[in-house]
Amino acid sequence: MNKSKSIAILGSTGSVGTQTLDVIAQHKEQFQVEALAGGNNIQLLLEQIHQFRPKKVSISTKELAEELKLSVPAGIEVLYGDEGLREVAAGTDADFVVTAVVGSKGLRPTLDAIEAGKTIGLANKETLVSGGHIVTEAARKHGVALVPIDSEHSAIFQCLNGERRTDVHKIVVTASGGSFRDRTRDQLVGVSVHEALQHPNWSMGAKITIDSATMMNKGLEVIEAHWLFNMDYDHIDVVIHPESIIHSYVEFVDHSIIAQLGSPDMRVPIQYALMYPNRMPNLSAPLDLVQVGKLHFRQMDMKRYPCMQMAYDSGRAGGTTPTVYNAANEVAVARFLDGAISFLDIEEVIIRTLHQHQSIASPDLEAIVEADQWARTVAAKII
Amino acid sequence: MNKSKSIAILGSTGSVGTQTLDVIAQHKEQFQVEALAGGNNIQLLLEQIHQFRPKKVSISTKELAEELKLSVPAGIEVLYGDEGLREVAAGTDADFVVTAVVGSKGLRPTLDAIEAGKTIGLANKETLVSGGHIVTEAARKHGVALVPIDSEHSAIFQCLNGERRTDVHKIVVTASGGSFRDRTRDQLVGVSVHEALQHPNWSMGAKITIDSATMMNKGLEVIEAHWLFNMDYDHIDVVIHPESIIHSYVEFVDHSIIAQLGSPDMRVPIQYALMYPNRMPNLSAPLDLVQVGKLHFRQMDMKRYPCMQMAYDSGRAGGTTPTVYNAANEVAVARFLDGAISFLDIEEVIIRTLHQHQSIASPDLEAIVEADQWARTVAAKII
Repeated sequence: MNKSKSIAILGSTGSVGTQTLDVIAQHKEQFQVEALAGGNNIQLLLEQIHQFRPKKVSISTKELAEELKLSVPAGIEVLYGDEGLREVAAGTDADFVVTAVVGSKGLRPTLDAIEAGKTIGLANKETLVSGGHIVTEAARKHGVALVPIDSEHSAIFQCLNGERRTDVHKIVVTASGGSFRDRTRDQLVGVSVHEALQHPNWSMGAKITIDSATMMNKGLEVIEAHWLFNMDYDHIDVVIHPESIIHSYVEFVDHSIIAQLGSPDMRVPIQYALMYPNRMPNLSAPLDLVQVGKLHFRQMDMKRYPCMQMAYDSGRAGGTTPTVYNAANEVAVARFLDGAISFLDIEEVIIRTLHQHQSIASPDLEAIVEADQWARTVAAKII
Repeated sequence: MNKSKSIAILGSTGSVGTQTLDVIAQHKEQFQVEALAGGNNIQLLLEQIHQFRPKKVSISTKELAEELKLSVPAGIEVLYGDEGLREVAAGTDADFVVTAVVGSKGLRPTLDAIEAGKTIGLANKETLVSGGHIVTEAARKHGVALVPIDSEHSAIFQCLNGERRTDVHKIVVTASGGSFRDRTRDQLVGVSVHEALQHPNWSMGAKITIDSATMMNKGLEVIEAHWLFNMDYDHIDVVIHPESIIHSYVEFVDHSIIAQLGSPDMRVPIQYALMYPNRMPNLSAPLDLVQVGKLHFRQMDMKRYPCMQMAYDSGRAGGTTPTVYNAANEVAVARFLDGAISFLDIEEVIIRTLHQHQSIASPDLEAIVEADQWARTVAAKII
């Protein structure tokens, strides 16, 4: 690499955000941090500011921004809220924007970054679920690459290296099965938030860990794969693979399968996205298949995981349906984490919200935002 | 594909040869058969001649050639022996030559084909083991591609698609373990030829099936991989994978692993080589990982499989040592199949022949042929 790549990160204090900065810290000569947008963790954001010296930073609220201003070095612009997020996304000289905020609030800043011609490192899957047709169309129009950061999509992206798109028969996304994979539905009654947060393989944020337990995360990934790789839903499969060693795979028309494997460590797909198409050594643990010994594969069960079935149904329905599918889940997960509803109620909230929704075909951004808001209002009151 | 590709096959009546013709028959519009060289099976060769109408054919001996001439359609040139093999390799308008003869007798015709500028579909691993430095140098000089047909090397070749050579950390070749993988060395005393020919996963010729049982086949593949992918032996590993589903894999410097998987069906790598870089549907069975259920991986045991250790030692020694390693094995396997020596004697013959050999560095073709002949003479008399 000849010149350093300048990076902006949306969601720098979250799990993917901090790991992105880990990767950057390991390869200082290749990157410079242009801007950071954090959540509520002012202490962590401050540490990141001191270590990486961004030109602009943003935090969730005006109050936190005022507090932050007292401690940042001179010359660093402090912003906040949705406007701050959009400024970090598009208002800098960054070449590459990592979208690692959680939820559909990532949609608008991602579109801003695309319109500003920046390459997107996509870790915010809700963006593509909620506004896939708008985002992919904008990326095409502005000649911008969407490089996946999710381990599954990074795997598929890597498997497609050097292959012709027309030679792909299907994409198979692997699913660990999440924290409750060995329980029946009956055994899910009354499970605690603490239990739901124990992911067997991956260390991730709270929302995505709950989404793994409901299989919602895999549902979002199926819709994300649909948009990222331009595949119809009949050619995207999900297989349960408890070890999370095969991160996903592609079957070609000649029945040859190319798979990407590795230890469960998000720094690998993050680094791949940041450095694409180059690879570099890193601090992740190499994978020793002999030590792993066995890999298992089980059929996805749509009855056990209704969120999975809803993903295919919503994706195929299109229009504002996937937006509602996603927004209802965001609200339901927040309510579960707050102790307001039970684990099984998460699915129930999504089902009932979808049931009430009148889908709009080919929605524009305004219609998407409206459907998203509508779903949030409805989902907040169901049950 | 705009024009049909013209093909010559060395070893058309063997396992890879017949499967190559199966692939060609399934995609008639893409290929024409220019020339065929068979072994002793005159009946099968005659059927192939009638079906594919090559311009030149060759058979092992003058006697068989005389017999063959009585039955072939007018205008088809009938050749025999080593000269016939060389003429089929280089004396036609074929674009692509499949080298599927067994043993180091494939070396000279392969070099002829390379010098004639033909792309090589390499199924004759003994060629690279015996004369790797000469063959790869000739291919470089004449700008000729060596496209692997062995399932393991095809897998690695596919995993390297679109990747930078400098990003490769190591190559891992998988080994089924062959027909005796669940036996200790003590349990190999007195095993019959019939038992040794029962390969658990692949339907292949007799020589390669015995080579699988001794792990010699994997040893030859390690040396073949060294030459094909220009990898030093410290970065080529072998892992026992009983299911033969992962055909081999590549670990990159970022600890990301790309693997190629499929049902054990040689027609897939054969077709890949013939059509490279394109893929096409075929009659092989798609791989369903859910149906497979489990994949296992075990450490290679160099004491259990001395042929494996000898491969690394011979490869690292270089010069004429790999030639002798291979030639001694060819003789030992033939003697085992004839009932002259026991299964465990195969290893013993190779060990003792190597022990007597004075390696010559950077041998030319003549020195290789001489070492090969010397090893055959010695190996025929040991034990």
